[in-house]
Amino acid sequence: MTTVKNAVGRDIPLELGGRKLKPYRGLFKTFPRGAKARGHFGRNRPGDKKLLDSIDEAIHACKLKDGQTVSFHHHLRDGDYVVNMVMKAIADHGLKDMVVAPSALFPCHEPLVGMIDSGVIHSIEGSVNGPIGDAISHGRMKGLNILRSHGGRVRAIESGELKIDVAFIGAPTADERGNLNGLYGKSACGFLGYAVADSMYAKKVVAITDNLVDYPALPIQIGGDYVDYVVSVPSIGDNQKIVSGTTKIATDPQKTSIAQAALDLMIHAGMVHDGMSYQAGAGGISLATTKFLGDYMKAHNIVAAWMDGGVTEHLIEIQKNGNCKAILDGQSFDVVSVEDMRTNPQHVAITPNYYANPWNKGCLVNILDTVVLGATEADIEFNINVNTHSDGRLLHGIGGHQDTAAGAKLSVMMMPVFRKTNAIIRDRVTTVSAPHHSVDAIVTDQGIAINPARKDLVKKLKGSPLKIVDIKELRDIAYAEAGKPEEPEYLDRIVSIVQFRDGTVLDTIRQVKG
Amino acid sequence: MTTVKNAVGRDIPLELGGRKLKPYRGLFKTFPRGAKARGHFGRNRPGDKKLLDSIDEAIHACKLKDGQTVSFHHHLRDGDYVVNMVMKAIADHGLKDMVVAPSALFPCHEPLVGMIDSGVIHSIEGSVNGPIGDAISHGRMKGLNILRSHGGRVRAIESGELKIDVAFIGAPTADERGNLNGLYGKSACGFLGYAVADSMYAKKVVAITDNLVDYPALPIQIGGDYVDYVVSVPSIGDNQKIVSGTTKIATDPQKTSIAQAALDLMIHAGMVHDGMSYQAGAGGISLATTKFLGDYMKAHNIVAAWMDGGVTEHLIEIQKNGNCKAILDGQSFDVVSVEDMRTNPQHVAITPNYYANPWNKGCLVNILDTVVLGATEADIEFNINVNTHSDGRLLHGIGGHQDTAAGAKLSVMMMPVFRKTNAIIRDRVTTVSAPHHSVDAIVTDQGIAINPARKDLVKKLKGSPLKIVDIKELRDIAYAEAGKPEEPEYLDRIVSIVQFRDGTVLDTIRQVKG
Repeated sequence: MTTVKNAVGRDIPLELGGRKLKPYRGLFKTFPRGAKARGHFGRNRPGDKKLLDSIDEAIHACKLKDGQTVSFHHHLRDGDYVVNMVMKAIADHGLKDMVVAPSALFPCHEPLVGMIDSGVIHSIEGSVNGPIGDAISHGRMKGLNILRSHGGRVRAIESGELKIDVAFIGAPTADERGNLNGLYGKSACGFLGYAVADSMYAKKVVAITDNLVDYPALPIQIGGDYVDYVVSVPSIGDNQKIVSGTTKIATDPQKTSIAQAALDLMIHAGMVHDGMSYQAGAGGISLATTKFLGDYMKAHNIVAAWMDGGVTEHLIEIQKNGNCKAILDGQSFDVVSVEDMRTNPQHVAITPNYYANPWNKGCLVNILDTVVLGATEADIEFNINVNTHSDGRLLHGIGGHQDTAAGAKLSVMMMPVFRKTNAIIRDRVTTVSAPHHSVDAIVTDQGIAINPARKDLVKKLKGSPLKIVDIKELRDIAYAEAGKPEEPEYLDRIVSIVQFRDGTVLDTIRQVKG
Repeated sequence: MTTVKNAVGRDIPLELGGRKLKPYRGLFKTFPRGAKARGHFGRNRPGDKKLLDSIDEAIHACKLKDGQTVSFHHHLRDGDYVVNMVMKAIADHGLKDMVVAPSALFPCHEPLVGMIDSGVIHSIEGSVNGPIGDAISHGRMKGLNILRSHGGRVRAIESGELKIDVAFIGAPTADERGNLNGLYGKSACGFLGYAVADSMYAKKVVAITDNLVDYPALPIQIGGDYVDYVVSVPSIGDNQKIVSGTTKIATDPQKTSIAQAALDLMIHAGMVHDGMSYQAGAGGISLATTKFLGDYMKAHNIVAAWMDGGVTEHLIEIQKNGNCKAILDGQSFDVVSVEDMRTNPQHVAITPNYYANPWNKGCLVNILDTVVLGATEADIEFNINVNTHSDGRLLHGIGGHQDTAAGAKLSVMMMPVFRKTNAIIRDRVTTVSAPHHSVDAIVTDQGIAINPARKDLVKKLKGSPLKIVDIKELRDIAYAEAGKPEEPEYLDRIVSIVQFRDGTVLDTIRQVKG
């Protein structure tokens, strides 16, 4: 296997299982040639029906075959029922070697592990969380897992790198012509943004709804002009589980102190002012930072031009207080956000293409001022890991992490220096999920490390009251308290690759021993 | 020149100026093979600017060349300034042989005639009204004019038949990242729907605005992810001129009697009931029909599921009265409609793709109950002409006429039997704009003719109080009152073709003598 060191020093094979790989070269170095992929025509006459009786019938109608690619979206997150329903129908159909292309899978999708073992699923191109990632790490999946960011996924679809045969779209509201929205219905989950590119480029599109209403279902988030079939089922999910695990605000003192330090950094870096923009990740510390930022803005009468992201009640509160003009909503992270979007004209939906695709005519993250994000690990080069645990197991997705880090003027990574017996700040991250070129600051409970490549920022913060420390000091504390980390025991086989948003390869993930 | 008779009996050449033509075969006979055309990537980094100082600079930036195709949209109709501004800049740039691809041109675009004569413009693919059509009819344009319906135009773009190099989009509101909307600003014109396909498929996209606002311009009708450059100008048009000529309600007794008869037909054909749908054309008689329909629905407590179309104050009044649940807005035909769309969640924008593209996964016209439309002429075969006058001159565009006629369960064509010395109902229309296969009834001041092919409708109306007459009787009245029409004097040269919405050719238009 010929490997090449990429721009973050990882050995990347140039070919893997018949797939050619391009090593990561730098933040804005890889742009496309040619034109985008092709969408697919329909064939629709007056009187034609789209409404089918079952998912099984839809699989028939789409002529789904062994080895084809089916896609899903993750707006219902850990409350989603659609993936399991559809994959069970595919398994019952006797299909094998399917490529599953979700925007993300969650612990609720554990039933897929059995289908990985039985060969129904050949590979997964998309983010995985929890048990499925664990199964992949243990080498149970036949094919390769490909991790892409939100921007990277839409880029892969638009460029034809990821070809979808059938997109299955869970729709909290639909009509029999295939107009879809996520704003209304018992399973309301917000904007169906992750499914938009799928609906535009998949050969066939099947909507699955638990709230079939009279035509026209309004608003039209995805139009019937992009939907082939509609299936009505009793329930597509539990929207109370949109808030789960990663999307709960932090309350313990260690985490809130990190959040406060991140806000202090933003202030001293000159990023909190009228007309500013801001995004926070889904993690608890990030949400706490948003909360503190809101309090600060309120106290100082500062009005942001816009904030974006996964939207929570905390962002909405900032806007309601008059401290933010517009909310650009890529995904609802709670039902408060879903409800607000129904009536608030200054809280608008944006697609992942608009938000983060590095190959379009201008994505939102490229004009973002500050993003604050969590992480699993950071290293002394300022590389960030959000995908694997320190034992090498793939347990988390990427989200928009590397997109926002690459685009934002100030990207802030927040984490404790160590967790229990695990050094978080270390010589080398287990997996590179965001390259050091995109990371400006690492904020910990023991101080803030500024990436020395950001000389302007280092200079600006000189003399500030912030506790600025060398990243190596943080590592030393971590090693002193938690012990020097041991390299996970790997087998040779690569089970997953981590793409950078432009399709180059940041890192590979190998099968763990045992 | 080898010609073939198409399904409406017109001789169609199989090749014209290097372009292969397919004769019209029937309403839903021609479907696509393969996949859609490709959109185009961008290349955008943090810090890149889109805002340019002038249209000239945008022409430079897009590297526009001789012979390339530029597109425009017509939301400001006869009040548009953008086409003339851009084409003047193109002429000043010294460019030649341009293909102009507007959704429609109006009398205000007369300055283009000089550019046709001077060779700046090689050909026009799009609807033309008035002086430009007249110039085309007189053989002044080097290349061929191609008339496409709203559905046909988006089909042509999506299928790659019409390739756009640079789309120029007049935007009543824009920000410097290229988020565009037509809802706000002094030139507000409603939804920028006609420009959506252009923005998705053109190689380069330039927005021209007279209301540059802080980011983000909301709502986002066309996103900055599809826009390369933004130019700010003093004025893009006069939105008071959206209502002009064809979009004024009829008041004279002959026309209102036709409108009333059309409503009576709808009622007796069983098309006016709870859950109905309805669309009217832009003409004065059509608007009067809408008014009368609204009065009738109010008096009888009937509630439509939806109405669509070019939206006017008359449709909005019906909805405000509680007689229509949803308005699906393809285009605003007055400023009342523009204002209503800002705040009314049951008045939503639809793209021409959603509305009328025959090759997608289901367009609106395919589920439309009734459409009422005007016409220039009708013949005893039930073919309809909306493009040429009886002297053979091309003076009008197509709009969604043939799309709605093809899709609707009941398509009603309204016109007087004769106008002054011109027989409107005649043996043979000057030009076939909508084929007889799509026409169910012709309503005139002298009675209603039902297409005998609609046996079910003929049977249903037997014994009704409607004045049902044979179309030949209407022709006889016309010829008795206005004289038998003379065939226009043509030269051999074909100056324009009329496409059916599926890209086949319905008819050709020849150069007129003199």
